[in-house]
Amino acid sequence: MSPDLNLPVGLFDSGIGGLTVLHALRRRLPRENLLYLGDTARLPYGTKARDTIIRYSQRATQKLVECGVKMLVIACNTATSAALPTLRRQFAPLPVMGVVEPGAEAAVAASRNRRIVITATEATIAGGAYQEAIRRRCPDATVIGRACTLFVSLAEEGWTDGPIAEGVAARYLRDLFADGPERPDTLLLGCTHFPLFKDALRHVVGPDVHIVDSAATTAQAVETELRRLGLLRQAEEDGTSRFLVTDNVARFMRSGGYFLGEAPREDAVALVDL
Amino acid sequence: MSPDLNLPVGLFDSGIGGLTVLHALRRRLPRENLLYLGDTARLPYGTKARDTIIRYSQRATQKLVECGVKMLVIACNTATSAALPTLRRQFAPLPVMGVVEPGAEAAVAASRNRRIVITATEATIAGGAYQEAIRRRCPDATVIGRACTLFVSLAEEGWTDGPIAEGVAARYLRDLFADGPERPDTLLLGCTHFPLFKDALRHVVGPDVHIVDSAATTAQAVETELRRLGLLRQAEEDGTSRFLVTDNVARFMRSGGYFLGEAPREDAVALVDL
Repeated sequence: MSPDLNLPVGLFDSGIGGLTVLHALRRRLPRENLLYLGDTARLPYGTKARDTIIRYSQRATQKLVECGVKMLVIACNTATSAALPTLRRQFAPLPVMGVVEPGAEAAVAASRNRRIVITATEATIAGGAYQEAIRRRCPDATVIGRACTLFVSLAEEGWTDGPIAEGVAARYLRDLFADGPERPDTLLLGCTHFPLFKDALRHVVGPDVHIVDSAATTAQAVETELRRLGLLRQAEEDGTSRFLVTDNVARFMRSGGYFLGEAPREDAVALVDL
Repeated sequence: MSPDLNLPVGLFDSGIGGLTVLHALRRRLPRENLLYLGDTARLPYGTKARDTIIRYSQRATQKLVECGVKMLVIACNTATSAALPTLRRQFAPLPVMGVVEPGAEAAVAASRNRRIVITATEATIAGGAYQEAIRRRCPDATVIGRACTLFVSLAEEGWTDGPIAEGVAARYLRDLFADGPERPDTLLLGCTHFPLFKDALRHVVGPDVHIVDSAATTAQAVETELRRLGLLRQAEEDGTSRFLVTDNVARFMRSGGYFLGEAPREDAVALVDL
């Protein structure tokens, strides 16, 4: 029996960063229903150990499956890097998509000189999933990972532009983009918070570097996959977005506004325990 | 039966911030054994809901009690604000000290114009424990709370001075310390991470404002209380410091170095599950 097409696409993230993926999906697929789970009680995942991240990801997915979803999108780079194969096995035949493969694909397509920098959380960089996904597509690529931990808390504070954001971006990345024959031509934003810093990053890397946003590329991949599986919703009216969080609804509403352009509607957000 | 004086003083924190309290205790009471629990799997507490913080604090205390401690120090402002009365009741007759009362006491003693600013995490400011502790001692004090969320991640990155730290300090606090008759004369650092930013904060508030460090004042209060209870360790040799963390020992070692001046010895750190 094929699933009900009106079932939502489920997304989960350690907190609010995945809202950039939800935002990109909402714009690309306005008819779909979306159900987002933010594990705000246990954010950030990015500084946690791999086993812990896998355990938390299993619980989040279990919750979305109980609510009923037709596809799962791991809207978190850290969780994708650590938990994607485990979740695919455990929840088969549910289609499970991550943010790593679409981002790696787009970065390889964008780069001419095959020198690619990945910015992400510490755990994503250490996990090596992006590096591996790029090298699988382009074995002679030079891939440099650089953890940019502070962007996460800057984004949640709403300080995504101006001198502090630019100062932080420069301190993390300027040395990698110094002039010379080894200068990378592509910067992959390997954390869902980071698209909010595009302007500050552009200021540091200059006008000629490709900045690849894994939220936008994931939304594109989700559309392709829903179409391939015959799971696109057939409806006249726009779909809904609903949100589950594990802690602090008020903070989610406020910080969520920085990611979505406007705060989620209060009656669309519920507190859950995992 | 009175407790063994060689038992350690137990400290817990959501992560590594409480190491400023351990550091102050180590210097003030070199003979004491210290046992520190950092709940690094669930940091930060500062953005979590009150009930969640109380539950986590109970588990951390239970763990230290199982290991054997002669006194508990809640080396975390957020946990002190939320959980001190609960822990005192639940674990009586174990002496339980927090960081709020010593900090409030010192701030009231320092201020001449009774205008005091508290900087802390969002949860500590919202909980109001500092404001209340100050007003209890000085009912006509003007107490202004200001959440300075980003300091926590800046400290864990080791970026505690220079233009970024100063820019962040200025963005949070400059307006409160503008010249005029209402200018506060005392700044209370109500988060254990914040003593690392003393220089950056001094740069923003100017030379004449009293900066009260709740780590140092807590160490002083712990000494007074150990003496009053006859619990000071009698020994010739220096005491030891041991560390329990709930996640990511490697990160704890690295970030811990910024707080202690040198990284903890590897054989003094153990991973535990709560």
